[in-house]
Amino acid sequence: MKTLKDLRPVYVVGIGWHGYQDRSDTPYVTLGLTAARAALQDAGVPFSAVDSAYIARALLGMACGRPILRHLGATGLPITHVENASASGSTAFRNACTEVASGLADTALVLGVDKPGAVVRAESQSGIEQLANDYIVPFTHFALLADKYVARSGADMRDIAQVAVKNHNNGALNPHAQRQRPRTLDEVLGARRVSGELTVLQCTPVGEGAAAVVVMSEDAIRAHGIDPGRAVRVLSSAAKSQAVYDDATAFDELLTQATCLQALAEAGVAPSALDVVELHDAFSIEEVLYVEAMGLCKPGQAISALKAGEFHIGGRVAVSPSGGLIAMGHPIGPTGVGQIAEIALQLRGEAGPRQHPNARTGLAHMVGVGAVCYAHVLSI
Amino acid sequence: MKTLKDLRPVYVVGIGWHGYQDRSDTPYVTLGLTAARAALQDAGVPFSAVDSAYIARALLGMACGRPILRHLGATGLPITHVENASASGSTAFRNACTEVASGLADTALVLGVDKPGAVVRAESQSGIEQLANDYIVPFTHFALLADKYVARSGADMRDIAQVAVKNHNNGALNPHAQRQRPRTLDEVLGARRVSGELTVLQCTPVGEGAAAVVVMSEDAIRAHGIDPGRAVRVLSSAAKSQAVYDDATAFDELLTQATCLQALAEAGVAPSALDVVELHDAFSIEEVLYVEAMGLCKPGQAISALKAGEFHIGGRVAVSPSGGLIAMGHPIGPTGVGQIAEIALQLRGEAGPRQHPNARTGLAHMVGVGAVCYAHVLSI
Repeated sequence: MKTLKDLRPVYVVGIGWHGYQDRSDTPYVTLGLTAARAALQDAGVPFSAVDSAYIARALLGMACGRPILRHLGATGLPITHVENASASGSTAFRNACTEVASGLADTALVLGVDKPGAVVRAESQSGIEQLANDYIVPFTHFALLADKYVARSGADMRDIAQVAVKNHNNGALNPHAQRQRPRTLDEVLGARRVSGELTVLQCTPVGEGAAAVVVMSEDAIRAHGIDPGRAVRVLSSAAKSQAVYDDATAFDELLTQATCLQALAEAGVAPSALDVVELHDAFSIEEVLYVEAMGLCKPGQAISALKAGEFHIGGRVAVSPSGGLIAMGHPIGPTGVGQIAEIALQLRGEAGPRQHPNARTGLAHMVGVGAVCYAHVLSI
Repeated sequence: MKTLKDLRPVYVVGIGWHGYQDRSDTPYVTLGLTAARAALQDAGVPFSAVDSAYIARALLGMACGRPILRHLGATGLPITHVENASASGSTAFRNACTEVASGLADTALVLGVDKPGAVVRAESQSGIEQLANDYIVPFTHFALLADKYVARSGADMRDIAQVAVKNHNNGALNPHAQRQRPRTLDEVLGARRVSGELTVLQCTPVGEGAAAVVVMSEDAIRAHGIDPGRAVRVLSSAAKSQAVYDDATAFDELLTQATCLQALAEAGVAPSALDVVELHDAFSIEEVLYVEAMGLCKPGQAISALKAGEFHIGGRVAVSPSGGLIAMGHPIGPTGVGQIAEIALQLRGEAGPRQHPNARTGLAHMVGVGAVCYAHVLSI
């Protein structure tokens, strides 16, 4: 089978957000339109140039993209709604890349948009009784993984909380972030406990927002006179779901490892060559597990690397310079799209006060409930 | 830009349903598993042969495919959930075809599954006040279009109701149909009125169910030793959304026309060459409008062709031999997938008592709320 790199090249040429924020009365159409318009304006192309649109959302109802796109014009383009829980935006981005890379479209718009509503997990609709009442909510799952990491590594919860300190400080530099306040270690540790040792400042907030990217072929870049120096190449796209692993309790790490290593291998990029990474840090412990799983440091070295500043903006590799899910926020549908936009911004050198110097290559990583995982490698 | 036919050939090699039915206590996982297992068994391949899975659903919550597929094995394949209202299944099928045609996968599973729940249309969540209370529910929209057709064509509602008579009779030959009872014209006309002149037997029922197809490349067909004589080629895939038309009140017909004519042109197939068509007959008037729009007869000739038996099984072209949305049912997520399965069954000559003789070429057509439209042309 082929990979994305075997097809024609695909580039991110436009990015935009509606800032992630606490739930509000803002109509979801306004959220989505703001991000879509920003991405089109950033690309410098009209909506009529878009051949295909993908809408990522997990919480909104049927056909939510149409009332948004209608404001941009009724051009007749194909519209597809994609959902993969937290990885919805990453999945929509992958689909758009596939369509452009295969030649079926020259220009695609990917728009992630969501508002908190009645969050429904399908499993609760399954009609199948649990054999035991063993369902563990996500924050408790990750609180248990934090305990496990502490037990096996010798780190303590103060160490793991350093993830949140870094990401809140990054978020404070990001005008699109839901949380824009720098936090000290004492503040993070002293915040309200959510589950186990995890405090609310170590968990992603509930919120809403939108993010959009415009994806193009080289033909379209030339046709629209887009500056190729601002076009960010999508080197690879990997998608997996949970498999059977030797250590079932480590499935988060093992799924991330398999997916990211495939994306890196297909891109021909070593983990050590990554300058910027946006990863799924819905809970602080996740970043610790995933930087090791994706090879940003050796197993067991995440805490020492973090404390040495290696994952800070300006460090060896900037991890979640946007603020990550902890500070940038995680409105679900937009999150994976926003990661791509952040990496594109960084690789263009346009990230302002949160710019990581000399960023050339980046990776975006998302996990979705039900254990799907996506990784994309981009470069300029 | 390329079309599907410019990429490598794609085939439907496995089909399966869980019968469409009135809402019940059957878990959605059971519905989906039944269809997926049937499609894999029909193809004669294990789940481990599937490289990528697409789940179509509109009414179920986040990540609903995972609890279904988990029963088939945790092989690590990519899983994508797609939603496009009534066209969800058609969209998922298109995505799977794109992935196989581009070479990113050799074998893909498309599973549509849904259960009635709290049906939410996104527009009701938009937070935007209507300028006027002008929202028209679908059955009233189509009741008005029926009135308009009567006014312009000289047909009467008895003529339009013949669509429902034909489709109920087809459904009576289909063990997977939600409605399996033949109906006389008097029964159709005498049933409870839903809106305007439309009776309940001229409207698709609310229901649940599942449908699945396995899509493959030629490489995979050879590798798995599949009988190429039972592999149905996907000649083209067209997707559009509503554009600006000269006659805004005819957007249903004009969108269908543009989409179907593009699918036929890309396939190199004339409308007159179609043997089998499954179309979006959620309301009887729709079939009348769409057979004209897609060129199965001349404008204004739908009623006379229908009454002459041209659209019956064994007629010039069998329209909705499955029973269509009126009798087969319309569980939303599965519908577009089930259409592809019905056409594949017909083209293989395996449709038993509802077999249309010498079926070689078919078209599947679906519309989704928010005005998206999909058309696929298949041949054997």
